[in-house]
Amino acid sequence: MMSRSFKTEIPSGVRDLMPGEAWCKRELEREISDIFRAWGYQEVVTPAFEYFDVLKIGQRDEQLDLMYKFIDRQGRILALRPDMTTPIARLTASRQKRGPFPLRLFYIANVFSYEEPQAGRQREYYQAGVELIGSSSPEADAEVLALTVEVLKKIGLQNFKLSVGQIDIFNGLMEELEVAEEVKKEIKTTISNQNFVGVEEILHNQKLPEKEIDKVMQIITLRGSRRELESIRPMLTSAKALKALDNLEEVFAVLTDYRLDRYVDLDLGLLRDFDYYTGLVFEGSALGLGFPICGGGRYDGLLGQFGLPCPATGFALGIERIMLALERQGHSRDFKNLDYIIEYESHRRLEAFDKAAQLRAEGHRVVTRDRRSGVRLNSEDSMFSDAKVITLD
Amino acid sequence: MMSRSFKTEIPSGVRDLMPGEAWCKRELEREISDIFRAWGYQEVVTPAFEYFDVLKIGQRDEQLDLMYKFIDRQGRILALRPDMTTPIARLTASRQKRGPFPLRLFYIANVFSYEEPQAGRQREYYQAGVELIGSSSPEADAEVLALTVEVLKKIGLQNFKLSVGQIDIFNGLMEELEVAEEVKKEIKTTISNQNFVGVEEILHNQKLPEKEIDKVMQIITLRGSRRELESIRPMLTSAKALKALDNLEEVFAVLTDYRLDRYVDLDLGLLRDFDYYTGLVFEGSALGLGFPICGGGRYDGLLGQFGLPCPATGFALGIERIMLALERQGHSRDFKNLDYIIEYESHRRLEAFDKAAQLRAEGHRVVTRDRRSGVRLNSEDSMFSDAKVITLD
Repeated sequence: MMSRSFKTEIPSGVRDLMPGEAWCKRELEREISDIFRAWGYQEVVTPAFEYFDVLKIGQRDEQLDLMYKFIDRQGRILALRPDMTTPIARLTASRQKRGPFPLRLFYIANVFSYEEPQAGRQREYYQAGVELIGSSSPEADAEVLALTVEVLKKIGLQNFKLSVGQIDIFNGLMEELEVAEEVKKEIKTTISNQNFVGVEEILHNQKLPEKEIDKVMQIITLRGSRRELESIRPMLTSAKALKALDNLEEVFAVLTDYRLDRYVDLDLGLLRDFDYYTGLVFEGSALGLGFPICGGGRYDGLLGQFGLPCPATGFALGIERIMLALERQGHSRDFKNLDYIIEYESHRRLEAFDKAAQLRAEGHRVVTRDRRSGVRLNSEDSMFSDAKVITLD
Repeated sequence: MMSRSFKTEIPSGVRDLMPGEAWCKRELEREISDIFRAWGYQEVVTPAFEYFDVLKIGQRDEQLDLMYKFIDRQGRILALRPDMTTPIARLTASRQKRGPFPLRLFYIANVFSYEEPQAGRQREYYQAGVELIGSSSPEADAEVLALTVEVLKKIGLQNFKLSVGQIDIFNGLMEELEVAEEVKKEIKTTISNQNFVGVEEILHNQKLPEKEIDKVMQIITLRGSRRELESIRPMLTSAKALKALDNLEEVFAVLTDYRLDRYVDLDLGLLRDFDYYTGLVFEGSALGLGFPICGGGRYDGLLGQFGLPCPATGFALGIERIMLALERQGHSRDFKNLDYIIEYESHRRLEAFDKAAQLRAEGHRVVTRDRRSGVRLNSEDSMFSDAKVITLD
């Protein structure tokens, strides 16, 4: 009960990473940054907080309420960044507008959102991701998908899958649907919540012809392999939707040349929950995890809002979610903190330090310990149980 | 003038790191974390914001005003962390209180302080540091100093120096000085600001005997090699100050066994600007830089404030300051973003991707580019000027 009187509580939704987890996080980030670099992506770092007026660009209204805001001494509203895509669009438009394009940027950063904490959802979490800016080609879409697969494979994840959708198939469908704008918005939100029964209800309430409803429902619930795509072509009439379908076909063709098409499936009900997406979107899932491990897509309108009209695509993965997925799949990184403990009597201290320096130079992890002064409040030292003890007495 | 209408401004005192800098930062952090691990330190990660009531522990009153604060939905005050020592003390006391001690922890993190931006001082900056918790021995003090030197050497810094002081020499002196508590506080602040003329004035205003003033001034302005220490021993009468002097002597003896004593000098006017320091303190400086690159010291009282009375020592270095020091010394890390550009005609795409995969597996950085779709808004591409171009047509 004593400890009640000390303040050691941390806010709900944020957490400490203890040594095993922090080690795993750092290893993952090293591996991921090496892969990003190998694909020619360059890292950028942006501030943890910026002006709210800047960070709100590209966010949906509901998300604005979830941003951590505070006021600076000039009375301007600051906010903790809720993602990295908007800051990087801002950075590119203001500081990198002369390219070289396509510009390949990556980041590994903490982002913030005031959501109800639940499994896989924290209020501060870590993302690694890329932005490929300046190309509207299906090759660019496919590169981002291929890089995502590459990362998930290389870090040792098994049984994962990317699901790909195309916003403009939905947008094209909606253009031809004779319902009010706000109903279209409601349909979009309902699809985003994966509530397809709800969508069907809305369509019925609008008294649309049964055939029309069937068509919409068939398209937005389409999942499976790329072969399914051709089945919906006859249903599409809008130029926008057909162009989107062509884009998906081409992306799959490029993915085939990457030899990675088997990792990617269709999910035309996927719309993603940022306002800035304009074309291909995707999410990644891992067996045994009830939430996506990564996601991304094309956002051709965002940079224009910062004064640099320019197509772009990208993805982000959740570091903690990946750690959880790896753990659930039994793929734990071998965490060994210490190789040697050198215990010495004072008169052999010089020798002990020299030995430690030598072992460290050989790549070992070493602590030294004066046999007199070694405070050991606990004798278990399970964390060091693997370490060899060298005694100089 | 057009761009005026777009919001791309970022708050004063925070900044973007563009590819060259971000690359240097990541390389440095890799090197530093490898060295920390080699010395048996384990990483921990704490939240970027916590309860203000927790983070304020160990901070001076002036620093409380400099913390970024905001309110959660329950009306509790949150703040962005101004340093990592307090959060790690909190973490240790609440989640690692059974050790194993001495506990060796490290971190690399962004911290926040609402200071006037100036050279080497930002409102968000990156720190790498260690905490050695559970040992009060001079070996522990010396280990932290030795590790600091090791890091600075290994990352390629030249012409650097650590200056070491001991708070208790000052505290001991003050105990014997017949002046009011608030005057002692004023003296401390004045010394912290390195205003020794000011200290002398204060002492004169107190009408202390000339001999007494001389003694204080001689001690608090003592700088130089460890040999100077013996010159002040006859001047010290308080048990606290003499014990502090012994501690310094012992630390230098241990440093000699690390073969690193030549990097460390005395500066008894060094008090450091956190409230939590209780013993040996130090700062590092590099030639040509007008501000410290690192600092640390002993803080035996802080963990007790979280319910785990326990001695501790540690240090932190400023990543951006180190980058600046390396740059000023002409030691720039070789930043090469890209090794190969593979340009292909569409019919040879598969071949291009296979070649890219092969080169990446060999450790190269490679981008692929469809010769049709390659958007190039700018032909200079200076960032890629070193890259070899492979053409598949």
